[in-house]
Amino acid sequence: MTDTPIVPIVMAGGAGTRLWPLSRETMPKQFIPLLDEGLSTFQATLLRIRDARFARPVIITNHGFRFVVAEQMQMVGVEGDIILEPERRDSAAAVAVGALLAKARGPQAVGIALAADHVVGDVARFREDCMIAAQMAAEGRIMTLGIVPTGPSTAYGYIEAGAPLGAPGAHRLERFVEKPDRATAERYCAQGFLWNSGNFVFCVETMLGELAAFAPEVLAGAEAAQQEAQTDLDFLRLDATAFGRIPRISIDYAVMEKTRHAGVLAARFDWSDVGAWDAIYDMKPKDENDNVLEGNVLALDSRGSLVRSEEILTTVIGLDEVVVVSTRDAVLVASKAAAGKVKGLVEALKRGHHREAEEHLRIYRPWGWYQRIDIGTRFQVKRINVKPGRKLSLQKHFHRAEHWVVVSGTAEVTLDGTVSHIHENESIYLPIGCVHRLHNPGRIDLELIEVQVGSYTGEDDIVRIEDIYART
Amino acid sequence: MTDTPIVPIVMAGGAGTRLWPLSRETMPKQFIPLLDEGLSTFQATLLRIRDARFARPVIITNHGFRFVVAEQMQMVGVEGDIILEPERRDSAAAVAVGALLAKARGPQAVGIALAADHVVGDVARFREDCMIAAQMAAEGRIMTLGIVPTGPSTAYGYIEAGAPLGAPGAHRLERFVEKPDRATAERYCAQGFLWNSGNFVFCVETMLGELAAFAPEVLAGAEAAQQEAQTDLDFLRLDATAFGRIPRISIDYAVMEKTRHAGVLAARFDWSDVGAWDAIYDMKPKDENDNVLEGNVLALDSRGSLVRSEEILTTVIGLDEVVVVSTRDAVLVASKAAAGKVKGLVEALKRGHHREAEEHLRIYRPWGWYQRIDIGTRFQVKRINVKPGRKLSLQKHFHRAEHWVVVSGTAEVTLDGTVSHIHENESIYLPIGCVHRLHNPGRIDLELIEVQVGSYTGEDDIVRIEDIYART
Repeated sequence: MTDTPIVPIVMAGGAGTRLWPLSRETMPKQFIPLLDEGLSTFQATLLRIRDARFARPVIITNHGFRFVVAEQMQMVGVEGDIILEPERRDSAAAVAVGALLAKARGPQAVGIALAADHVVGDVARFREDCMIAAQMAAEGRIMTLGIVPTGPSTAYGYIEAGAPLGAPGAHRLERFVEKPDRATAERYCAQGFLWNSGNFVFCVETMLGELAAFAPEVLAGAEAAQQEAQTDLDFLRLDATAFGRIPRISIDYAVMEKTRHAGVLAARFDWSDVGAWDAIYDMKPKDENDNVLEGNVLALDSRGSLVRSEEILTTVIGLDEVVVVSTRDAVLVASKAAAGKVKGLVEALKRGHHREAEEHLRIYRPWGWYQRIDIGTRFQVKRINVKPGRKLSLQKHFHRAEHWVVVSGTAEVTLDGTVSHIHENESIYLPIGCVHRLHNPGRIDLELIEVQVGSYTGEDDIVRIEDIYART
Repeated sequence: MTDTPIVPIVMAGGAGTRLWPLSRETMPKQFIPLLDEGLSTFQATLLRIRDARFARPVIITNHGFRFVVAEQMQMVGVEGDIILEPERRDSAAAVAVGALLAKARGPQAVGIALAADHVVGDVARFREDCMIAAQMAAEGRIMTLGIVPTGPSTAYGYIEAGAPLGAPGAHRLERFVEKPDRATAERYCAQGFLWNSGNFVFCVETMLGELAAFAPEVLAGAEAAQQEAQTDLDFLRLDATAFGRIPRISIDYAVMEKTRHAGVLAARFDWSDVGAWDAIYDMKPKDENDNVLEGNVLALDSRGSLVRSEEILTTVIGLDEVVVVSTRDAVLVASKAAAGKVKGLVEALKRGHHREAEEHLRIYRPWGWYQRIDIGTRFQVKRINVKPGRKLSLQKHFHRAEHWVVVSGTAEVTLDGTVSHIHENESIYLPIGCVHRLHNPGRIDLELIEVQVGSYTGEDDIVRIEDIYART
C-alpha cells in the first residue's frame, strides 16, 4: 500500500448528450440528480473519495459549468481545486492537466483519473480496489480499473488481461478492444475479458513520462495552459490559446494503447457508465411488469419500459421495451434498442437550431435560476429564483420594460440608484432603459414573476454594468 | 325528390375520449380544429349543410358546450337553434328531441340526424346522397347512410343491405351487425356489407311513430323535457328532471334494429368517424416514411407513425406504427394497434383524479380563455385572453390578491366601483376581497398576465356578483 493519499482527478467536463432530454450540453448528466438519493453522479463521485486515503480532489471541468460545480461541491461539503477548460477537449488533456497539478503535491504522488458520470454500487470495495491499484501504480504501472462483465454488453470497450501481477485481481494489460457486436461480446465474456471503465490509477511521474513519450503535444499544451492560467474568483482558468492547441484525443488512444506499463485491475464493485437510457433502465428497480415508472406517468399493457416525467402527465399504452422521457419542453420516445441513437438525434436537433438540444427550460445562474413560463409576440414571462444573499448584475435593456411581482421572499431592488424593498404580494415596474439590479437580502429563496413587455425579449438584450460573478 | 328542405339535427354532445389528450370531456373532438383547414368537424358539418336543400339546423349539445357551439357557429356564419341537454344521454334522446323540433317546421318535414364528429370527403356527393335518402324518407323509410368499406375495418359496425328500393344505391336494410373481428370483417366486405355511419334520414312523423312504438319512454321524456324547456340567453335548455328520466340508449338499439321501415343508402362520399388516433393517421397525407408528422416534431428511423405536438418538442427514434401526441400538459404514446384503448386509459386517469383526463390546460369561457402558466405553493400565474367587447363577471376572492399586467390591448377594470383603463405595459393591483370586473372595450384581443398571490388559488374561490352570461 502507498503511504500518501491518492489525488483524485475528477473529469467533469462532458456534454452527456446520450441522456437527452434530461441531460443537455449546458447542464449535462453528471450534474443532474439521477440517483435515488437525489444526488448527481458528480456529487456521488466526490463522496466516494471523501476518505482519509484520498487527497483534496482536482476537478477539471468546462468553464460553463463552474458555478454548478462549485454549488454541488458545497452542497455535499467537499472542497477541491476547480480547473476550468476554456473549450471541450478529450480525456488526454484533462489527465495531463490533472497529473501536472497532482505532481505539485509531491513527486511520488499517485493520481486517479475518475469520470464524474459513472455509478458505483459499493463504495467500500471501490476504495479498497483503488488502494490495490495505487500499490501497483507506485511500482510503475498505469492501472485501468476493469469491470467484470455482468453480461455480453455491446456498449463498452473490453480489455484482455494478461499475466497476473503481485496483487489480487491485478494483471498486465494485454490489449484494448473496441465495442464489439453481440457475438463477439459473448466470446469476450467467455474468455474472461473485462469492461474498460475509463478510470485510471497512476504515479504522476509515470503518466507524465508516457505523455512526453507518446503525446508530447498534449503535454506541452497542458503545461503552457497551466503556466498561463488565470485565477478567476475561486477557479483556475487554463489559458485559452495554449489549451486550444492541445489535440482532441482520449487518454486511451494517446497513452494506454501504447505504454508498456499498462495494467488492469479486475474491480469488484458494481458499476455503470449510465451511458444511455437503456443503462438507466438496467440500474433501476423494476415493477411487476418489468417497468421503471418515475414521476407523473401511467402505463397500460406495457412491459420492460422506462417511462419518466419531470412534470407533464405521460402515458403509454401497448408498447414494450421503450423509453419515454418527458421534460417541460421536450419529449423523447425511443425503442430501448435504439437508445444509443439519441446522440445522433441531438445532433440533428442542433442542425435544426432547436434551443432544446442544448439548453434546459430552467437556466441555472450563479445567483439561482430562471425559467420561461410563457412567451408571446411582444411579451415574455419568467419565474426567477434568487438564493439568499445572491445578487444579479447591475443591468439595463434597450427593448423591454419589466414588471416584477414578488411571490415569495423579499427583493432588494436598485432602480436608477434608488434602493427599495419589495415584499411578497408587492410589485415594481422597471421602465425601458432604466439601470436596475435585483438582490435577495433575506434568509429564504426569493421568487418573483417577471413580465417583460417590448418589441424584443431575447436574452442578449442586456447590458451588464457590474457583476459580482465577473460576467461583465 | 322532396320539395321542402331537410332539417339537419346535429348531434354535438359527445365526449370524444378516444382522441385524448387532444380531445377532453370539457372540449371534445368535435370542437377541435382537427382538419387541415383549421376547422372543427362540428364546423365542417355545419358548412356541409349550408345549402338551399337544407333548412336551419337544430344543434343538440351538452349545456357545458353552449358557448363553444355558439362561437364556432358564429365563426362560420351558420345560424341555428341550439338545444341544451342537461346531462349526457345516448343518441335516441337527441334524435327524439330533434324530431319533435323538426315537426314544428311542418308535418311532413324530413330530418337528418348528423354526428358532429365525422369527416366527409366530398360535400357535393354528400348532399346528393342526402336528397336520394330524403326521397326514400318521404316514402316512409328511415334511411341509414351506409358507407362502402375501403377495407375490412374492425372499428365499425356493418349493415347487410337487402332488396333494392327505387333509387340508385338504396336498399331495404336486412340487418345490423356489431363491430366484427378481422376475419369476419373480411367476409362482410366480400359479401358487400356497408359500414354503419350512424347518420339517418327520416320523415319526422315516421320516426316519432316508431319511437312511440318501440321506445315510448324516450319519446315521453323528450316531449316533457321540451315542454318544460327554458330559454337561457340564445339557448333552449331542456328540463333537467324530465330529461334525466330518458333511458340511455342509442337510436340503433331503440328504433333501427326494430323498425320494419329501415333502409340503407350506399353513400358515395369518403367518410371517417375519426373514432381513434389510427383513424386520424389513416385520413392524413403521409411522408416518404409513411409518417404523419405535425407540429414541433422529429422522427428518426421510424415508419408508419403519427407524431403530433401542440407545442413541446417531441421526438421519436426507432419505433414503427406508433402514435405519439403531446399537448402542453399531457403526452400519449401508444402502439397504433392499441389506439382503441385510449378510452380505457382516460377512465383510469379519471379514477386517479387526474385533472388532465377531463380538462385542457387552456379553459374556454364565453368571454375568451385562460391558461395556467405556472403554479407554486402560494401563487399561480395565468394568461388571460378577452375577446373584443367581452366582459368577465363582477367578482371577488376571499384568499387571493391579483396583479394584472396587460401585454396586449386595453383593459377596462372596475375596482370597488371605480373604472380605469389599463393599457399595454401597464399593471393594476387587486387586493384580497375587492370587487372587480374585467372588460375588453377595444377592437383587438386583450391579453394579460395575472399573478395570483394568496393562501389558496383554487378556481372555486370566486363569488360572482353579476354576470352577463347568466353564471351567477
